[in-house]
Amino acid sequence: MSSALPRPVARLIDAFARLPGIGPKTASRLAFHLLRMPDDHALQLSEALRALKESVVHCQRCYNIAETSPCEVCADPSRDSGTVCVVEEPLDVIALERTGEYKGLYHVLHGAISPVDGIGPTDLRIDELVRRMGVEPIREIILATNPSLEGDATAMFIERALRANGSEVRLTRLARGLPVGGDIEYADEVTLGRAMTGRSEVR
Amino acid sequence: MSSALPRPVARLIDAFARLPGIGPKTASRLAFHLLRMPDDHALQLSEALRALKESVVHCQRCYNIAETSPCEVCADPSRDSGTVCVVEEPLDVIALERTGEYKGLYHVLHGAISPVDGIGPTDLRIDELVRRMGVEPIREIILATNPSLEGDATAMFIERALRANGSEVRLTRLARGLPVGGDIEYADEVTLGRAMTGRSEVR
Repeated sequence: MSSALPRPVARLIDAFARLPGIGPKTASRLAFHLLRMPDDHALQLSEALRALKESVVHCQRCYNIAETSPCEVCADPSRDSGTVCVVEEPLDVIALERTGEYKGLYHVLHGAISPVDGIGPTDLRIDELVRRMGVEPIREIILATNPSLEGDATAMFIERALRANGSEVRLTRLARGLPVGGDIEYADEVTLGRAMTGRSEVR
Repeated sequence: MSSALPRPVARLIDAFARLPGIGPKTASRLAFHLLRMPDDHALQLSEALRALKESVVHCQRCYNIAETSPCEVCADPSRDSGTVCVVEEPLDVIALERTGEYKGLYHVLHGAISPVDGIGPTDLRIDELVRRMGVEPIREIILATNPSLEGDATAMFIERALRANGSEVRLTRLARGLPVGGDIEYADEVTLGRAMTGRSEVR
């Protein structure tokens, strides 16, 4: 940009523009918005960013992001430590917690196997899951990876890794079917096919 | 959000979500992106935000944002100090500098008169412009406010304020007409009407 732009503003625009989904136009709009706002908004954002790396750790049991290790879920004695739900990302934990349907523990892989992006099994927390199997009283592992090619491949890899280790643990996957509130007419054929295969008795 | 979300992450999501055009979904995507990235990106952004308020000042001559007062443009002896271009925002200065067509000075109003938003003449740097007229050798003032209702009202207000002060300075506005690369067929009637009124001799 022109020399008419003070360097601190140019640096902030550059830093914003490196975020995903934020182009140079949006970045400069954000920077000028913060320039016009009272001081404390920019400083609050600055502080929040600094605190992010300083006070967020990975729980050394489930590898979810947390303020302490073990995290709140792992440290909660009322949770069922016999069930472990394996997810790709910390956001998946939040989504599952929001349902209120799950009372077990988690294991966060931090990604899915994706040869295209150069992500192999060793980049994920799969070895750590196998290790947990050996020391924790786990009865069931729910493979809650995404219903995508990468998620399915990751679930299959984990299944083989556990079985190769001689584990007899119960392995389950989340149900596939029609989304609640969805419309059969607009469902894609794969989802509809799965909904048909997985149909259940009317009770 | 759920208690599964560490507070520093929740705080960062809140701070991002207060920015214009960033909703809670985008805010959490940004926060999790920064969590995954190496430390230095979040820290660079944090530093850039802190520096924004610490090292950006308003030039006390033209009120553009700058690192020093007077700013680079005002301090440049090669610029024509007899011409002052009045704009609404610092971004307008950058746009005009980019054209390379303008060699005079600027005056940044920091907004336009807009009764709907509660912005009156006293909220803008209009008094400061009248004051500059008294002490600087200004021959021409270019009223380069936006071609909008608010911009036109602001330009008209400034014109009256200067004339009421007995000033005989030359007042001009930016040309209205067809944008370069535009299409007559798709031009709106106001723009096309202005282009017709302001037509010039073929030379």
